[in-house]
Amino acid sequence: MAARKIIIDTDPGQDDAFAILFALGSPEELDVIGITTVGGNVPLARTTTNALKVLELAQRPDIPVYAGCPGPTVRKLITAENIHGETGLDGADFPEPTTAAQSEHAVNYLVRTIMAAPEGELTVCTLGPMTNLAMAMTMEPRIIPRIREVVSMGGGFFEGGNATPAAEFNIFVDPHAAHKVYASCVPITMAGIDCTYTAQMTPGWINSLRDTGSRTATEAANLADFFRIYGSHKFPTEARPIHDACVTGYLLKPEIFEQRQCHVTVDISSPVTIGMTVVDWWHVTGQERNCNVLRRIDPEPFFALMAERIGSLP
Amino acid sequence: MAARKIIIDTDPGQDDAFAILFALGSPEELDVIGITTVGGNVPLARTTTNALKVLELAQRPDIPVYAGCPGPTVRKLITAENIHGETGLDGADFPEPTTAAQSEHAVNYLVRTIMAAPEGELTVCTLGPMTNLAMAMTMEPRIIPRIREVVSMGGGFFEGGNATPAAEFNIFVDPHAAHKVYASCVPITMAGIDCTYTAQMTPGWINSLRDTGSRTATEAANLADFFRIYGSHKFPTEARPIHDACVTGYLLKPEIFEQRQCHVTVDISSPVTIGMTVVDWWHVTGQERNCNVLRRIDPEPFFALMAERIGSLP
Amino acid sequence: MAARKIIIDTDPGQDDAFAILFALGSPEELDVIGITTVGGNVPLARTTTNALKVLELAQRPDIPVYAGCPGPTVRKLITAENIHGETGLDGADFPEPTTAAQSEHAVNYLVRTIMAAPEGELTVCTLGPMTNLAMAMTMEPRIIPRIREVVSMGGGFFEGGNATPAAEFNIFVDPHAAHKVYASCVPITMAGIDCTYTAQMTPGWINSLRDTGSRTATEAANLADFFRIYGSHKFPTEARPIHDACVTGYLLKPEIFEQRQCHVTVDISSPVTIGMTVVDWWHVTGQERNCNVLRRIDPEPFFALMAERIGSLP
Amino acid sequence: MAARKIIIDTDPGQDDAFAILFALGSPEELDVIGITTVGGNVPLARTTTNALKVLELAQRPDIPVYAGCPGPTVRKLITAENIHGETGLDGADFPEPTTAAQSEHAVNYLVRTIMAAPEGELTVCTLGPMTNLAMAMTMEPRIIPRIREVVSMGGGFFEGGNATPAAEFNIFVDPHAAHKVYASCVPITMAGIDCTYTAQMTPGWINSLRDTGSRTATEAANLADFFRIYGSHKFPTEARPIHDACVTGYLLKPEIFEQRQCHVTVDISSPVTIGMTVVDWWHVTGQERNCNVLRRIDPEPFFALMAERIGSLP
Repeated sequence: MAARKIIIDTDPGQDDAFAILFALGSPEELDVIGITTVGGNVPLARTTTNALKVLELAQRPDIPVYAGCPGPTVRKLITAENIHGETGLDGADFPEPTTAAQSEHAVNYLVRTIMAAPEGELTVCTLGPMTNLAMAMTMEPRIIPRIREVVSMGGGFFEGGNATPAAEFNIFVDPHAAHKVYASCVPITMAGIDCTYTAQMTPGWINSLRDTGSRTATEAANLADFFRIYGSHKFPTEARPIHDACVTGYLLKPEIFEQRQCHVTVDISSPVTIGMTVVDWWHVTGQERNCNVLRRIDPEPFFALMAERIGSLP
Repeated sequence: MAARKIIIDTDPGQDDAFAILFALGSPEELDVIGITTVGGNVPLARTTTNALKVLELAQRPDIPVYAGCPGPTVRKLITAENIHGETGLDGADFPEPTTAAQSEHAVNYLVRTIMAAPEGELTVCTLGPMTNLAMAMTMEPRIIPRIREVVSMGGGFFEGGNATPAAEFNIFVDPHAAHKVYASCVPITMAGIDCTYTAQMTPGWINSLRDTGSRTATEAANLADFFRIYGSHKFPTEARPIHDACVTGYLLKPEIFEQRQCHVTVDISSPVTIGMTVVDWWHVTGQERNCNVLRRIDPEPFFALMAERIGSLP
Repeated sequence: MAARKIIIDTDPGQDDAFAILFALGSPEELDVIGITTVGGNVPLARTTTNALKVLELAQRPDIPVYAGCPGPTVRKLITAENIHGETGLDGADFPEPTTAAQSEHAVNYLVRTIMAAPEGELTVCTLGPMTNLAMAMTMEPRIIPRIREVVSMGGGFFEGGNATPAAEFNIFVDPHAAHKVYASCVPITMAGIDCTYTAQMTPGWINSLRDTGSRTATEAANLADFFRIYGSHKFPTEARPIHDACVTGYLLKPEIFEQRQCHVTVDISSPVTIGMTVVDWWHVTGQERNCNVLRRIDPEPFFALMAERIGSLP
Repeated sequence: MAARKIIIDTDPGQDDAFAILFALGSPEELDVIGITTVGGNVPLARTTTNALKVLELAQRPDIPVYAGCPGPTVRKLITAENIHGETGLDGADFPEPTTAAQSEHAVNYLVRTIMAAPEGELTVCTLGPMTNLAMAMTMEPRIIPRIREVVSMGGGFFEGGNATPAAEFNIFVDPHAAHKVYASCVPITMAGIDCTYTAQMTPGWINSLRDTGSRTATEAANLADFFRIYGSHKFPTEARPIHDACVTGYLLKPEIFEQRQCHVTVDISSPVTIGMTVVDWWHVTGQERNCNVLRRIDPEPFFALMAERIGSLP
């Protein structure tokens, strides 16, 4: 079977870097045809450079990078240097990119590429605020039925949020974009923090990744160490989730995820719950089950596969 | 030490009956000085009669019952016959009450009694919508610093809701009342469904309760059977929580509950989250920790104590 | 025809005093059977004393005054000393009251009196936040169909608000109470600022009131002078509305008001419009016309009648 | 002085056609460099064709037309065939266009053109939902300080709304886009219905327009007749406003408008006020005066100029 074609929409971010490297290390299953960037964890200029650096590290400068929206559709941008460090890739020493981003805007790239591909071929993975995808849907709604699946790291329900008590960061940054995508009827899988918190990187696993010995694995391990320790000022646990990588994990091994088809909507009304992904897990509303909600992941096969695949990169 | 004086504000409801009987069976620790009723699980006329029936069964018609507000402070009343049956005490055969409710309105009783008691003496247990207590606080705000503690079954966060995906029934029925009480700075302990779902009645436990042999225990077991089975059309599990009884359990054995002091606010703005108790478990907002949130209960000592105490009633 | 029996619910306030005196000067048409007070323009202790003072001035200490709720049903109290001065009756020298407020709470008085009166007999005039009336409706909903009419100073639509761009002060202080009353299906007439701004007191009229020569008229004129000038720091016009008095004017001469039956609802959701009375003037929503909206008043007969009636008091 | 360069963003609509023709008839003052279309009064395919037809009628097929977003940024599209007829230009017989719309998307055209023009040169007139402009601001926020002025038909405050009691149609269709533009700090002039309702077309004026004798004037008069009569089923008056044309009127003769610099925000939270432009006319909030609000128009010079200028077209 041919590799599944995916576009990764991202705001790297250490965990975004893991998601991308995990995909690049799985070329038989996943064909990363383009990367689009958005302002989120850090501002757009940095997320774009970071995407290029990740490709450089993996020796895949052939994959085009498209810079997208610097901020959200309605609100002002909030960033998260307190989690990711000033650059978004603090902790590792990535090579400077030898290529530049494309001149086409990420939103236009999404529209053009999805319209040109066969219906149902392309999967869009969103690892940051969903601004670019929502904008593309507004500019050209005919892309919606052409998308095979959106797989999104964002949201959460049973764990509450991490940006506010009710909202996870990616959704909180652009709740209106997420609301639009969830209401669009596109097939969507949500890897929220209910899922990502169940797969936590331990120091031991990071060391095993480092021990695979390649440069990419070494730098990934450095990133992981930073992310694990730096974030711990807020959530004082030794292990830490590696959120965005769960998206890649789901694409490669959906069978290791507990999942349920549910109605999900994003609150855009209340000052205390704006950006919350309200999951109707028990189907009490009777509203259409528009989302495949990932709730738990089996961490062992997940981390084993990720170490193997990232370790396979140069 | 003298028994702790409590007023039980309630809308029986099978699980309310358990909470009341559990308290009445613990006279050395808890002194139930009055019961106030509210429209909630079933309409006010029924909840008032039901409270009287519970006292009749326990041979405690000396405890006065005060009927309160038939519906919520701002919205229209929603009831839950789908969970509790038409009467609210379906499943058992309770004696007809030989006493009547007092003529004083529950809201006036709350104001008068709390103002007359020594500061910090009285505890108010709310087992239904918080209408009566919020109304009393509006009529006479000087009651607020006189209350020792409010212990409330209602809300939830990590389990979502049961009336809507985000809101638990008691809070959903009168979100504005709950919002007021939570914002009032009264000391409050929240026994939400995060807590109550961790203590589930099993058929075995119900049988052990019945086996204690008293009439009260027999009828309580009948109630429990009905509640366990009738509710299961929605949540198909063999065991079922006995929500309100956790309030009594907390008063008797707080040490068997996992608890944390958190900021809690009730959403009154969004159509999808109205009535949600938003718990800042990780203190990310920095707002004042106004609530003692119960998250887990150790079920074994809880059910053992409840069987013993209800079994001690005639 | 017998005089129409009214209860005045009020937070005096200079303009409340006018409304009361205007009614007391019209004994053949209006029978003020009781006055209830609420926290609003100034705190409850002051509004209660002020109501007693107004009755003392008019030599009507026989009318009972009942103190009500010190603050609103859900939110914290906001007062308006910037408009009314520290006491609420700044500008005049009213006699100290020789009587005290009744011991019964205003909410209980409303419930008791409305339940005891023949159905459809009593009119409730609300000149402040609608807290007391909403509370009475929650405590005893059977009062709702017994009320002949609620006539309320509060709200506005075409003039916007005065507390915020969208909300008038009385409604803004307790939007949830107003929401409840408007949604209750009680017959209600709204004298909002769309109406009250069309009847502005001029210096000339105030002088003509003073010239009637009685003590009450003199003090009323002093109040009016204060209110006219003190408020002008915000709205720089020589003439000023005398809001609450329009309620009395409407009861006496409804024919001088432009009015239309409309659907009205009070916003309780948005941070920028909370407390706004949304008037469906053109019936575009098709929702039930639950309110008689006063839009314009013919100022000449209004002011002529008010001077005559207040001038008739001792 | 050179003619002022404007881009007209529009959803024709009879009144949009008037605004465009009024501008085209004023070439010494206004240079229409492009027209962008949006879904609004009628769907995008129709508004785009209609824009082309208007240019064809005026013999200005040299002006490029760019089709934009078919629907709003967050919500689903609502259209207004009940006001404009099925085509949006019902009532007249416009020539079929001989040119086609450009292939570039309107949003990209806005970004490209505003970035390429000298800072402060271009004015954007929005005559429909503000989707395209808000999208352009999200894709490329650097356009914001480059825009000379946005002149927008939309909103209203003192007249309430026309789509809902509180919201005018253009803003109601895409409240989030309008919220974004108003919050963006771009210089903006709002020609809401408070303004547009003060300039009503009469049958007499329409006849005087027809009497100028050109084909364009004749068809414009036909449009006006339709619009005047068809809309009257809702607002039964003989004269009717010609909303969008006020934007052109303001650009040509700002001195005939009563205007005030105010803080304006668009509600995006409440089910009853969503899409309302909340105008702080009295500056009670103290928030930044971000909008030039047009409140009244002197109708005589406005209609005289419009007849003259449209009459000057072939």
